[in-house]
Amino acid sequence: MLPLATAQDIVGAALEHARTEQMPPMTVAVLDASGQLVAFAREDRSSLLRERIARGKAHGALNMGFGSRALVARAASHPHFFTAVTALADGNLVPVPGGVLVRDADGELIGAVGVSGSVPDADEACAIAGIESVDLSADPGE
Amino acid sequence: MLPLATAQDIVGAALEHARTEQMPPMTVAVLDASGQLVAFAREDRSSLLRERIARGKAHGALNMGFGSRALVARAASHPHFFTAVTALADGNLVPVPGGVLVRDADGELIGAVGVSGSVPDADEACAIAGIESVDLSADPGE
Amino acid sequence: MLPLATAQDIVGAALEHARTEQMPPMTVAVLDASGQLVAFAREDRSSLLRERIARGKAHGALNMGFGSRALVARAASHPHFFTAVTALADGNLVPVPGGVLVRDADGELIGAVGVSGSVPDADEACAIAGIESVDLSADPGE
Amino acid sequence: MLPLATAQDIVGAALEHARTEQMPPMTVAVLDASGQLVAFAREDRSSLLRERIARGKAHGALNMGFGSRALVARAASHPHFFTAVTALADGNLVPVPGGVLVRDADGELIGAVGVSGSVPDADEACAIAGIESVDLSADPGE
Repeated sequence: MLPLATAQDIVGAALEHARTEQMPPMTVAVLDASGQLVAFAREDRSSLLRERIARGKAHGALNMGFGSRALVARAASHPHFFTAVTALADGNLVPVPGGVLVRDADGELIGAVGVSGSVPDADEACAIAGIESVDLSADPGE
Repeated sequence: MLPLATAQDIVGAALEHARTEQMPPMTVAVLDASGQLVAFAREDRSSLLRERIARGKAHGALNMGFGSRALVARAASHPHFFTAVTALADGNLVPVPGGVLVRDADGELIGAVGVSGSVPDADEACAIAGIESVDLSADPGE
Repeated sequence: MLPLATAQDIVGAALEHARTEQMPPMTVAVLDASGQLVAFAREDRSSLLRERIARGKAHGALNMGFGSRALVARAASHPHFFTAVTALADGNLVPVPGGVLVRDADGELIGAVGVSGSVPDADEACAIAGIESVDLSADPGE
Repeated sequence: MLPLATAQDIVGAALEHARTEQMPPMTVAVLDASGQLVAFAREDRSSLLRERIARGKAHGALNMGFGSRALVARAASHPHFFTAVTALADGNLVPVPGGVLVRDADGELIGAVGVSGSVPDADEACAIAGIESVDLSADPGE
Protein backbone atom coordinates (compact mmCIF):
# COMPACT_ATOMS: atom_id res chain seq x y z
CA MET A 1 0.00 0.00 0.00
CA LEU A 2 1.09 3.55 -0.79
CA PRO A 3 -0.39 5.93 1.81
CA LEU A 4 -1.57 9.40 0.81
CA ALA A 5 0.96 11.12 3.10
CA THR A 6 3.82 9.28 1.39
CA ALA A 7 2.43 10.03 -2.06
CA GLN A 8 2.17 13.74 -1.22
CA ASP A 9 5.78 13.75 -0.02
CA ILE A 10 6.83 12.17 -3.32
CA VAL A 11 5.01 14.88 -5.27
CA GLY A 12 6.62 17.59 -3.15
CA ALA A 13 10.16 16.27 -3.54
CA ALA A 14 9.73 15.65 -7.29
CA LEU A 15 8.62 19.24 -7.84
CA GLU A 16 11.35 20.60 -5.58
CA HIS A 17 13.88 18.78 -7.76
CA ALA A 18 12.28 20.32 -10.85
CA ARG A 19 12.50 23.84 -9.39
CA THR A 20 16.11 23.36 -8.28
CA GLU A 21 16.98 22.28 -11.82
CA GLN A 22 14.92 25.12 -13.31
CA MET A 23 12.83 22.80 -15.46
CA PRO A 24 9.72 23.93 -17.37
CA PRO A 25 6.28 23.48 -15.70
CA MET A 26 5.97 19.87 -14.52
CA THR A 27 3.12 17.47 -13.81
CA VAL A 28 3.49 14.62 -11.30
CA ALA A 29 1.11 11.70 -10.75
CA VAL A 30 1.48 9.08 -8.02
CA LEU A 31 -0.48 5.84 -8.50
CA ASP A 32 -0.89 2.89 -6.15
CA ALA A 33 -0.09 -0.61 -7.40
CA SER A 34 -3.62 -1.05 -8.74
CA GLY A 35 -3.36 2.04 -10.93
CA GLN A 36 -5.53 4.33 -8.80
CA LEU A 37 -4.43 7.97 -8.59
CA VAL A 38 -3.35 8.82 -5.02
CA ALA A 39 -1.77 12.28 -5.32
CA PHE A 40 -1.30 14.67 -8.22
CA ALA A 41 0.06 18.13 -8.96
CA ARG A 42 0.16 20.15 -12.15
CA GLU A 43 2.40 23.21 -12.15
CA ASP A 44 1.07 26.49 -13.53
CA ARG A 45 1.28 26.86 -17.31
CA SER A 46 1.59 23.13 -18.00
CA SER A 47 0.24 22.21 -21.42
CA LEU A 48 -3.08 20.41 -21.79
CA LEU A 49 -2.04 16.78 -22.18
CA ARG A 50 0.42 16.63 -19.27
CA GLU A 51 -1.93 14.83 -16.89
CA ARG A 52 -2.62 12.11 -19.44
CA ILE A 53 1.07 11.71 -20.29
CA ALA A 54 2.25 11.59 -16.68
CA ARG A 55 -0.41 9.03 -15.83
CA GLY A 56 0.21 7.11 -19.03
CA LYS A 57 3.85 6.69 -18.11
CA ALA A 58 3.07 5.52 -14.57
CA HIS A 59 0.13 3.35 -15.59
CA GLY A 60 2.11 1.91 -18.47
CA ALA A 61 4.82 0.84 -16.05
CA LEU A 62 2.20 -0.92 -13.91
CA ASN A 63 0.50 -2.36 -16.98
CA MET A 64 3.61 -4.18 -18.12
CA GLY A 65 5.46 -4.60 -14.83
CA PHE A 66 8.60 -2.55 -15.54
CA GLY A 67 9.56 1.12 -15.66
CA SER A 68 8.68 3.04 -18.81
CA ARG A 69 12.35 3.35 -19.80
CA ALA A 70 12.22 -0.40 -20.54
CA LEU A 71 9.30 0.15 -22.92
CA VAL A 72 11.43 2.18 -25.34
CA ALA A 73 13.40 -0.76 -26.72
CA ARG A 74 10.34 -2.98 -26.85
CA ALA A 75 8.37 -0.42 -28.82
CA ALA A 76 11.26 -0.15 -31.29
CA SER A 77 11.75 -3.90 -31.71
CA HIS A 78 8.04 -4.87 -31.81
CA PRO A 79 6.19 -1.85 -33.23
CA HIS A 80 3.00 -3.68 -34.22
CA PHE A 81 2.73 -5.49 -30.91
CA PHE A 82 3.15 -2.13 -29.26
CA THR A 83 0.44 -0.50 -31.36
CA ALA A 84 -2.04 -3.21 -30.43
CA VAL A 85 -1.21 -3.19 -26.74
CA THR A 86 -1.38 0.62 -26.64
CA ALA A 87 -4.95 0.31 -27.91
CA LEU A 88 -5.74 -2.35 -25.28
CA ALA A 89 -4.36 0.02 -22.63
CA ASP A 90 -6.33 3.07 -23.89
CA GLY A 91 -2.99 4.74 -24.48
CA ASN A 92 -1.68 4.10 -20.97
CA LEU A 93 1.60 2.73 -22.24
CA VAL A 94 3.88 5.68 -22.96
CA PRO A 95 7.30 4.40 -24.08
CA VAL A 96 9.68 7.06 -22.79
CA PRO A 97 11.53 7.45 -19.50
CA GLY A 98 9.56 9.06 -16.68
CA GLY A 99 7.28 6.25 -15.47
CA VAL A 100 9.04 4.75 -12.47
CA LEU A 101 7.91 1.81 -10.33
CA VAL A 102 7.95 2.23 -6.55
CA ARG A 103 9.12 -0.69 -4.42
CA ASP A 104 9.33 -1.05 -0.65
CA ALA A 105 12.26 -2.40 1.37
CA ASP A 106 11.26 -5.98 0.50
CA GLY A 107 11.19 -5.22 -3.23
CA GLU A 108 7.40 -5.41 -3.24
CA LEU A 109 5.66 -3.28 -5.89
CA ILE A 110 3.54 -0.63 -4.16
CA GLY A 111 2.94 1.95 -6.89
CA ALA A 112 4.34 4.07 -9.70
CA VAL A 113 5.22 7.70 -10.32
CA GLY A 114 4.77 9.42 -13.68
CA VAL A 115 6.27 12.80 -14.55
CA SER A 116 5.90 14.93 -17.68
CA GLY A 117 6.92 18.45 -18.69
CA SER A 118 10.62 18.42 -19.53
CA VAL A 119 12.77 16.04 -21.57
CA PRO A 120 12.25 12.37 -20.66
CA ASP A 121 15.54 11.94 -18.75
CA ALA A 122 14.74 15.00 -16.65
CA ASP A 123 11.17 13.80 -16.06
CA GLU A 124 12.57 10.51 -14.81
CA ALA A 125 15.07 12.28 -12.54
CA CYS A 126 12.17 14.09 -10.85
CA ALA A 127 10.31 10.82 -10.28
CA ILE A 128 13.40 9.18 -8.80
CA ALA A 129 14.12 12.18 -6.57
CA GLY A 130 10.57 11.99 -5.27
CA ILE A 131 10.66 8.27 -4.57
CA GLU A 132 14.07 8.32 -2.90
CA SER A 133 13.08 11.25 -0.67
CA VAL A 134 10.74 8.90 1.22
CA ASP A 135 13.29 6.06 1.41
CA LEU A 136 11.50 3.88 -1.11
CA SER A 137 13.16 2.20 -4.06
CA ALA A 138 12.84 3.63 -7.60
CA ASP A 139 12.74 1.14 -10.49
CA PRO A 140 12.90 3.13 -13.76
CA GLY A 141 13.42 0.15 -16.09
CA GLU A 142 16.52 -0.44 -18.21
CA MET B 1 -6.10 31.30 -12.90
CA LEU B 2 -5.91 28.86 -10.00
CA PRO B 3 -2.23 28.41 -9.01
CA LEU B 4 -0.97 25.00 -7.88
CA ALA B 5 -0.01 26.34 -4.43
CA THR B 6 -3.56 27.59 -3.87
CA ALA B 7 -5.04 24.32 -5.11
CA GLN B 8 -2.83 22.33 -2.75
CA ASP B 9 -3.94 24.52 0.16
CA ILE B 10 -7.56 23.86 -0.79
CA VAL B 11 -6.94 20.10 -0.79
CA GLY B 12 -5.22 20.30 2.59
CA ALA B 13 -7.98 22.33 4.24
CA ALA B 14 -10.74 20.17 2.74
CA LEU B 15 -9.15 17.02 4.15
CA GLU B 16 -8.46 18.68 7.49
CA HIS B 17 -12.17 19.46 7.71
CA ALA B 18 -12.98 15.84 6.88
CA ARG B 19 -10.66 14.54 9.61
CA THR B 20 -12.03 17.01 12.20
CA GLU B 21 -15.53 15.79 11.40
CA GLN B 22 -14.40 12.14 11.40
CA MET B 23 -15.72 11.45 7.92
CA PRO B 24 -15.00 8.25 5.97
CA PRO B 25 -12.03 8.25 3.52
CA MET B 26 -12.39 11.25 1.22
CA THR B 27 -11.21 12.16 -2.27
CA VAL B 28 -10.66 15.78 -3.32
CA ALA B 29 -10.08 17.10 -6.85
CA VAL B 30 -9.29 20.73 -7.70
CA LEU B 31 -9.81 21.77 -11.33
CA ASP B 32 -9.01 25.04 -13.02
CA ALA B 33 -11.67 26.88 -15.01
CA SER B 34 -10.83 24.88 -18.15
CA GLY B 35 -11.45 21.57 -16.39
CA GLN B 36 -7.80 20.55 -16.06
CA LEU B 37 -6.85 18.75 -12.85
CA VAL B 38 -4.51 20.92 -10.76
CA ALA B 39 -4.25 19.07 -7.43
CA PHE B 40 -5.71 15.83 -6.14
CA ALA B 41 -5.65 13.61 -3.07
CA ARG B 42 -7.27 10.26 -2.37
CA GLU B 43 -7.32 9.15 1.26
CA ASP B 44 -6.34 5.58 2.09
CA ARG B 45 -9.13 2.99 1.69
CA SER B 46 -11.25 5.12 -0.63
CA SER B 47 -13.39 2.99 -2.93
CA LEU B 48 -12.45 2.67 -6.60
CA LEU B 49 -14.77 5.19 -8.26
CA ARG B 50 -14.07 8.13 -5.92
CA GLU B 51 -11.70 9.90 -8.30
CA ARG B 52 -14.23 9.79 -11.09
CA ILE B 53 -17.10 10.97 -8.88
CA ALA B 54 -15.13 13.83 -7.31
CA ARG B 55 -14.03 15.01 -10.74
CA GLY B 56 -17.49 14.41 -12.17
CA LYS B 57 -18.97 16.77 -9.60
CA ALA B 58 -16.38 19.49 -10.20
CA HIS B 59 -16.33 19.08 -13.96
CA GLY B 60 -20.12 18.97 -14.03
CA ALA B 61 -20.23 22.30 -12.24
CA LEU B 62 -17.88 23.78 -14.84
CA ASN B 63 -19.77 22.06 -17.66
CA MET B 64 -23.04 23.83 -16.82
CA GLY B 65 -21.77 26.94 -15.04
CA PHE B 66 -23.22 26.40 -11.57
CA GLY B 67 -22.43 24.30 -8.51
CA SER B 68 -23.55 20.66 -8.58
CA ARG B 69 -26.22 21.32 -5.92
CA ALA B 70 -28.08 23.32 -8.57
CA LEU B 71 -28.04 20.30 -10.88
CA VAL B 72 -30.30 18.29 -8.56
CA ALA B 73 -33.49 20.24 -9.30
CA ARG B 74 -32.72 20.48 -13.00
CA ALA B 75 -32.21 16.74 -13.29
CA ALA B 76 -35.57 16.19 -11.59
CA SER B 77 -37.49 18.71 -13.71
CA HIS B 78 -35.88 17.80 -17.06
CA PRO B 79 -34.89 14.14 -16.77
CA HIS B 80 -34.59 13.35 -20.48
CA PHE B 81 -32.54 16.47 -21.17
CA PHE B 82 -30.34 15.48 -18.28
CA THR B 83 -29.84 11.95 -19.55
CA ALA B 84 -28.78 13.26 -22.96
CA VAL B 85 -26.40 15.86 -21.54
CA THR B 86 -24.88 13.32 -19.15
CA ALA B 87 -24.00 11.20 -22.18
CA LEU B 88 -22.50 14.23 -23.95
CA ALA B 89 -20.40 14.88 -20.84
CA ASP B 90 -19.25 11.26 -20.50
CA GLY B 91 -20.85 11.25 -17.07
CA ASN B 92 -19.13 14.42 -15.91
CA LEU B 93 -22.39 15.91 -14.69
CA VAL B 94 -23.03 14.40 -11.27
CA PRO B 95 -26.20 15.95 -9.84
CA VAL B 96 -25.54 15.91 -6.09
CA PRO B 97 -23.94 18.49 -3.77
CA GLY B 98 -20.16 18.39 -3.60
CA GLY B 99 -19.08 20.11 -6.82
CA VAL B 100 -18.39 23.73 -5.89
CA LEU B 101 -17.33 26.58 -8.17
CA VAL B 102 -14.40 28.77 -7.09
CA ARG B 103 -14.62 32.52 -7.69
CA ASP B 104 -12.10 35.28 -6.99
CA ALA B 105 -12.74 38.62 -5.30
CA ASP B 106 -14.24 39.99 -8.53
CA GLY B 107 -16.64 37.06 -8.82
CA GLU B 108 -14.63 35.70 -11.73
CA LEU B 109 -14.80 31.91 -12.17
CA ILE B 110 -11.32 30.41 -11.65
CA GLY B 111 -12.01 26.72 -11.00
CA ALA B 112 -14.03 24.08 -9.18
CA VAL B 113 -13.58 21.66 -6.32
CA GLY B 114 -15.16 18.19 -6.22
CA VAL B 115 -15.31 16.00 -3.14
CA SER B 116 -16.59 12.44 -2.70
CA GLY B 117 -16.55 9.89 0.13
CA SER B 118 -19.23 10.85 2.63
CA VAL B 119 -22.87 11.94 2.20
CA PRO B 120 -23.32 14.77 -0.34
CA ASP B 121 -23.87 17.57 2.18
CA ALA B 122 -20.70 16.60 4.03
CA ASP B 123 -18.76 16.34 0.77
CA GLU B 124 -19.86 19.86 -0.08
CA ALA B 125 -18.89 21.15 3.37
CA CYS B 126 -15.32 19.88 2.76
CA ALA B 127 -15.14 21.66 -0.59
CA ILE B 128 -16.39 24.93 0.93
CA ALA B 129 -13.97 24.66 3.87
CA GLY B 130 -11.13 24.20 1.41
CA ILE B 131 -12.09 27.14 -0.78
CA GLU B 132 -12.72 29.55 2.10
CA SER B 133 -9.41 28.65 3.73
CA VAL B 134 -7.63 30.49 0.90
CA ASP B 135 -9.98 33.49 0.97
CA LEU B 136 -11.71 32.60 -2.28
CA SER B 137 -15.46 32.46 -2.77
CA ALA B 138 -17.34 29.13 -2.83
CA ASP B 139 -20.38 28.87 -5.08
CA PRO B 140 -22.10 25.51 -4.39
CA GLY B 141 -25.25 26.20 -6.41
CA GLU B 142 -28.75 26.52 -4.99
CA MET C 1 -4.62 -9.84 -1.41
CA LEU C 2 -6.86 -12.49 -2.92
CA PRO C 3 -4.68 -15.39 -4.18
CA LEU C 4 -5.61 -17.25 -7.36
CA ALA C 5 -6.05 -20.56 -5.49
CA THR C 6 -8.59 -18.96 -3.15
CA ALA C 7 -10.40 -17.30 -6.04
CA GLN C 8 -10.65 -20.61 -7.90
CA ASP C 9 -12.09 -22.28 -4.79
CA ILE C 10 -14.70 -19.50 -4.58
CA VAL C 11 -15.69 -20.10 -8.21
CA GLY C 12 -15.94 -23.83 -7.63
CA ALA C 13 -18.11 -23.55 -4.53
CA ALA C 14 -20.36 -20.91 -6.10
CA LEU C 15 -21.04 -23.14 -9.10
CA GLU C 16 -21.52 -26.20 -6.90
CA HIS C 17 -24.20 -24.27 -5.03
CA ALA C 18 -25.84 -23.37 -8.35
CA ARG C 19 -25.89 -26.99 -9.50
CA THR C 20 -27.27 -28.22 -6.14
CA GLU C 21 -30.07 -25.68 -6.44
CA GLN C 22 -30.61 -26.54 -10.12
CA MET C 23 -30.17 -22.98 -11.27
CA PRO C 24 -29.89 -21.94 -14.95
CA PRO C 25 -26.38 -21.54 -16.46
CA MET C 26 -24.34 -19.25 -14.21
CA THR C 27 -21.36 -16.95 -14.64
CA VAL C 28 -18.99 -16.18 -11.76
CA ALA C 29 -16.27 -13.50 -11.64
CA VAL C 30 -13.83 -13.03 -8.77
CA LEU C 31 -12.02 -9.66 -8.62
CA ASP C 32 -9.27 -8.49 -6.28
CA ALA C 33 -9.71 -5.26 -4.33
CA SER C 34 -8.30 -3.21 -7.21
CA GLY C 35 -10.91 -4.54 -9.65
CA GLN C 36 -8.61 -6.91 -11.54
CA LEU C 37 -10.16 -10.21 -12.66
CA VAL C 38 -8.52 -13.13 -10.82
CA ALA C 39 -10.70 -16.15 -11.70
CA PHE C 40 -13.74 -16.58 -13.91
CA ALA C 41 -16.09 -19.29 -15.14
CA ARG C 42 -19.01 -19.16 -17.55
CA GLU C 43 -21.27 -22.21 -17.60
CA ASP C 44 -22.34 -23.66 -20.93
CA ARG C 45 -25.31 -21.96 -22.61
CA SER C 46 -24.96 -18.72 -20.65
CA SER C 47 -26.31 -15.75 -22.58
CA LEU C 48 -23.98 -13.21 -24.14
CA LEU C 49 -23.91 -10.41 -21.58
CA ARG C 50 -23.34 -12.57 -18.50
CA GLU C 51 -19.64 -11.79 -18.16
CA ARG C 52 -20.28 -8.06 -18.27
CA ILE C 53 -23.14 -8.29 -15.75
CA ALA C 54 -21.24 -10.49 -13.29
CA ARG C 55 -18.22 -8.21 -13.44
CA GLY C 56 -20.41 -5.10 -13.33
CA LYS C 57 -21.95 -6.29 -10.07
CA ALA C 58 -18.58 -7.08 -8.48
CA HIS C 59 -16.83 -3.99 -9.85
CA GLY C 60 -19.79 -1.82 -8.86
CA ALA C 61 -19.48 -3.04 -5.28
CA LEU C 62 -15.78 -2.09 -5.30
CA ASN C 63 -16.50 1.19 -7.06
CA MET C 64 -18.81 2.40 -4.30
CA GLY C 65 -17.51 0.42 -1.34
CA PHE C 66 -20.58 -1.68 -0.51
CA GLY C 67 -22.29 -4.78 -1.87
CA SER C 68 -24.52 -4.35 -4.91
CA ARG C 69 -27.68 -5.04 -2.85
CA ALA C 70 -27.07 -1.64 -1.23
CA LEU C 71 -27.07 0.01 -4.65
CA VAL C 72 -30.74 -0.85 -5.26
CA ALA C 73 -32.19 1.69 -2.82
CA ARG C 74 -29.72 4.37 -3.87
CA ALA C 75 -30.59 3.97 -7.53
CA ALA C 76 -34.29 4.30 -6.66
CA SER C 77 -33.87 7.35 -4.44
CA HIS C 78 -31.31 9.21 -6.61
CA PRO C 79 -31.97 8.10 -10.20
CA HIS C 80 -30.14 10.97 -11.93
CA PHE C 81 -27.09 10.65 -9.72
CA PHE C 82 -27.10 6.98 -10.54
CA THR C 83 -27.33 7.58 -14.27
CA ALA C 84 -24.33 9.92 -14.18
CA VAL C 85 -22.20 7.65 -12.01
CA THR C 86 -23.07 4.63 -14.17
CA ALA C 87 -21.62 6.55 -17.11
CA LEU C 88 -18.50 7.43 -15.10
CA ALA C 89 -18.13 3.73 -14.28
CA ASP C 90 -18.61 2.56 -17.87
CA GLY C 91 -21.63 0.63 -16.65
CA ASN C 92 -19.76 -1.13 -13.86
CA LEU C 93 -22.39 -0.26 -11.28
CA VAL C 94 -25.17 -2.83 -11.57
CA PRO C 95 -27.81 -2.15 -8.89
CA VAL C 96 -29.14 -5.63 -8.10
CA PRO C 97 -28.04 -8.25 -5.56
CA GLY C 98 -25.20 -10.50 -6.65
CA GLY C 99 -22.11 -8.32 -6.24
CA VAL C 100 -20.65 -9.25 -2.86
CA LEU C 101 -17.58 -7.79 -1.14
CA VAL C 102 -14.99 -10.19 0.27
CA ARG C 103 -13.41 -9.37 3.62
CA ASP C 104 -10.73 -11.20 5.57
CA ALA C 105 -10.76 -12.05 9.28
CA ASP C 106 -9.77 -8.48 10.16
CA GLY C 107 -12.63 -7.02 8.10
CA GLU C 108 -10.16 -5.80 5.47
CA LEU C 109 -11.55 -5.57 1.92
CA ILE C 110 -9.69 -8.02 -0.33
CA GLY C 111 -11.97 -8.39 -3.35
CA ALA C 112 -15.48 -8.93 -4.69
CA VAL C 113 -17.48 -11.72 -6.31
CA GLY C 114 -20.09 -11.12 -8.99
CA VAL C 115 -22.60 -13.72 -10.15
CA SER C 116 -25.20 -13.59 -12.91
CA GLY C 117 -27.54 -16.12 -14.55
CA SER C 118 -30.51 -16.66 -12.22
CA VAL C 119 -32.70 -14.23 -10.25
CA PRO C 120 -30.70 -11.69 -8.22
CA ASP C 121 -31.28 -13.28 -4.81
CA ALA C 122 -30.12 -16.64 -6.15
CA ASP C 123 -27.09 -15.03 -7.81
CA GLU C 124 -26.17 -13.50 -4.47
CA ALA C 125 -26.61 -16.82 -2.66
CA CYS C 126 -24.05 -18.40 -5.02
CA ALA C 127 -21.56 -15.60 -4.33
CA ILE C 128 -22.01 -15.94 -0.57
CA ALA C 129 -21.68 -19.76 -0.75
CA GLY C 130 -18.43 -19.34 -2.63
CA ILE C 131 -16.96 -16.81 -0.24
CA GLU C 132 -17.94 -18.69 2.90
CA SER C 133 -16.52 -21.95 1.55
CA VAL C 134 -13.02 -20.48 1.96
CA ASP C 135 -13.71 -19.05 5.42
CA LEU C 136 -13.80 -15.46 4.26
CA SER C 137 -16.52 -12.96 5.10
CA ALA C 138 -19.26 -12.07 2.57
CA ASP C 139 -20.60 -8.49 2.63
CA PRO C 140 -23.59 -8.33 0.24
CA GLY C 141 -24.80 -4.84 1.25
CA GLU C 142 -28.09 -4.02 2.90
CA MET D 1 -18.64 -25.85 -28.48
CA LEU D 2 -16.01 -25.54 -25.75
CA PRO D 3 -17.51 -26.74 -22.43
CA LEU D 4 -16.55 -25.02 -19.17
CA ALA D 5 -15.06 -28.22 -17.74
CA THR D 6 -12.73 -28.53 -20.74
CA ALA D 7 -11.78 -24.86 -20.56
CA GLN D 8 -10.95 -25.18 -16.86
CA ASP D 9 -8.74 -28.20 -17.61
CA ILE D 10 -6.93 -26.15 -20.26
CA VAL D 11 -6.30 -23.37 -17.76
CA GLY D 12 -5.02 -25.85 -15.18
CA ALA D 13 -2.62 -27.59 -17.57
CA ALA D 14 -1.35 -24.31 -19.01
CA LEU D 15 -0.50 -23.01 -15.54
CA GLU D 16 1.02 -26.34 -14.53
CA HIS D 17 3.32 -26.06 -17.53
CA ALA D 18 4.25 -22.52 -16.48
CA ARG D 19 5.07 -23.62 -12.93
CA THR D 20 7.14 -26.60 -14.17
CA GLU D 21 9.13 -24.24 -16.36
CA GLN D 22 9.42 -21.67 -13.54
CA MET D 23 7.95 -18.86 -15.61
CA PRO D 24 6.97 -15.46 -14.16
CA PRO D 25 3.32 -14.94 -13.08
CA MET D 26 1.05 -15.96 -15.97
CA THR D 27 -2.46 -15.10 -17.12
CA VAL D 28 -4.56 -17.55 -19.15
CA ALA D 29 -7.83 -16.83 -20.97
CA VAL D 30 -9.95 -19.44 -22.75
CA LEU D 31 -12.51 -18.14 -25.24
CA ASP D 32 -15.16 -20.03 -27.18
CA ALA D 33 -15.40 -19.63 -30.96
CA SER D 34 -17.65 -16.58 -30.59
CA GLY D 35 -15.08 -14.77 -28.49
CA GLN D 36 -16.87 -15.15 -25.15
CA LEU D 37 -14.67 -15.74 -22.12
CA VAL D 38 -15.25 -19.24 -20.72
CA ALA D 39 -12.50 -19.67 -18.10
CA PHE D 40 -9.76 -17.41 -16.82
CA ALA D 41 -6.97 -17.36 -14.26
CA ARG D 42 -4.51 -14.63 -13.29
CA GLU D 43 -1.56 -15.71 -11.17
CA ASP D 44 -0.60 -13.62 -8.15
CA ARG D 45 1.59 -10.58 -8.91
CA SER D 46 0.69 -10.42 -12.60
CA SER D 47 0.98 -6.88 -13.97
CA LEU D 48 -2.17 -4.87 -14.68
CA LEU D 49 -2.57 -5.34 -18.43
CA ARG D 50 -2.15 -9.13 -18.53
CA GLU D 51 -5.86 -9.89 -18.81
CA ARG D 52 -6.24 -7.55 -21.76
CA ILE D 53 -3.14 -8.92 -23.52
CA ALA D 54 -4.05 -12.58 -23.01
CA ARG D 55 -7.55 -11.95 -24.32
CA GLY D 56 -6.21 -9.74 -27.10
CA LYS D 57 -4.06 -12.61 -28.35
CA ALA D 58 -6.90 -15.15 -28.23
CA HIS D 59 -9.52 -12.77 -29.59
CA GLY D 60 -7.12 -11.60 -32.28
CA ALA D 61 -6.68 -15.20 -33.43
CA LEU D 62 -10.47 -15.58 -33.66
CA ASN D 63 -10.82 -12.16 -35.28
CA MET D 64 -8.61 -13.12 -38.22
CA GLY D 65 -8.99 -16.90 -38.25
CA PHE D 66 -5.42 -17.97 -37.51
CA GLY D 67 -3.16 -18.19 -34.50
CA SER D 68 -1.48 -14.98 -33.36
CA ARG D 69 1.96 -16.23 -34.49
CA ALA D 70 0.69 -15.84 -38.06
CA LEU D 71 -0.17 -12.20 -37.36
CA VAL D 72 3.49 -11.25 -36.89
CA ALA D 73 4.46 -11.52 -40.55
CA ARG D 74 1.23 -9.90 -41.73
CA ALA D 75 1.73 -6.92 -39.44
CA ALA D 76 5.26 -6.51 -40.82
CA SER D 77 4.26 -6.81 -44.50
CA HIS D 78 1.07 -4.69 -44.28
CA PRO D 79 1.67 -2.23 -41.45
CA HIS D 80 -1.00 0.33 -42.38
CA PHE D 81 -3.65 -2.32 -42.91
CA PHE D 82 -2.70 -3.71 -39.55
CA THR D 83 -2.97 -0.36 -37.81
CA ALA D 84 -6.45 0.16 -39.21
CA VAL D 85 -7.66 -3.31 -38.32
CA THR D 86 -6.21 -3.02 -34.82
CA ALA D 87 -8.37 0.06 -34.33
CA LEU D 88 -11.43 -1.79 -35.66
CA ALA D 89 -10.71 -4.58 -33.17
CA ASP D 90 -10.19 -2.19 -30.21
CA GLY D 91 -6.71 -3.63 -29.89
CA ASN D 92 -7.85 -7.26 -29.90
CA LEU D 93 -5.31 -8.21 -32.52
CA VAL D 94 -2.03 -8.70 -30.69
CA PRO D 95 0.61 -9.82 -33.21
CA VAL D 96 2.89 -12.03 -31.11
CA PRO D 97 2.83 -15.76 -30.38
CA GLY D 98 0.57 -16.84 -27.53
CA GLY D 99 -2.92 -16.73 -29.07
CA VAL D 100 -3.67 -20.31 -30.17
CA LEU D 101 -6.78 -21.61 -31.93
CA VAL D 102 -8.47 -24.74 -30.55
CA ARG D 103 -9.78 -27.32 -33.03
CA ASP D 104 -11.64 -30.56 -32.40
CA ALA D 105 -10.93 -33.97 -33.98
CA ASP D 106 -12.68 -32.86 -37.19
CA GLY D 107 -10.57 -29.72 -37.45
CA GLU D 108 -13.57 -27.61 -36.49
CA LEU D 109 -12.74 -24.33 -34.73
CA ILE D 110 -14.17 -24.36 -31.20
CA GLY D 111 -12.24 -21.63 -29.39
CA ALA D 112 -8.92 -19.98 -28.63
CA VAL D 113 -6.48 -19.75 -25.75
CA GLY D 114 -4.46 -16.62 -24.95
CA VAL D 115 -1.53 -16.53 -22.54
CA SER D 116 0.59 -13.60 -21.31
CA GLY D 117 3.28 -13.14 -18.69
CA SER D 118 6.55 -14.53 -20.08
CA VAL D 119 8.24 -14.16 -23.47
CA PRO D 120 5.93 -14.87 -26.43
CA ASP D 121 7.32 -18.32 -27.27
CA ALA D 122 6.90 -19.43 -23.67
CA ASP D 123 3.40 -17.97 -23.53
CA GLU D 124 2.51 -20.00 -26.61
CA ALA D 125 4.01 -23.17 -25.14
CA CYS D 126 1.67 -22.83 -22.15
CA ALA D 127 -1.34 -22.45 -24.42
CA ILE D 128 -0.35 -25.52 -26.45
CA ALA D 129 0.30 -27.57 -23.31
CA GLY D 130 -3.17 -26.66 -22.06
CA ILE D 131 -4.94 -27.53 -25.31
CA GLU D 132 -3.13 -30.82 -25.84
CA SER D 133 -3.82 -31.91 -22.26
CA VAL D 134 -7.50 -32.30 -23.19
CA ASP D 135 -6.77 -34.05 -26.50
CA LEU D 136 -7.76 -31.11 -28.64
CA SER D 137 -5.70 -29.70 -31.47
CA ALA D 138 -3.62 -26.54 -31.04
CA ASP D 139 -3.24 -24.24 -34.06
CA PRO D 140 -0.72 -21.51 -33.17
CA GLY D 141 -0.37 -20.07 -36.69
CA GLU D 142 2.78 -20.14 -38.75
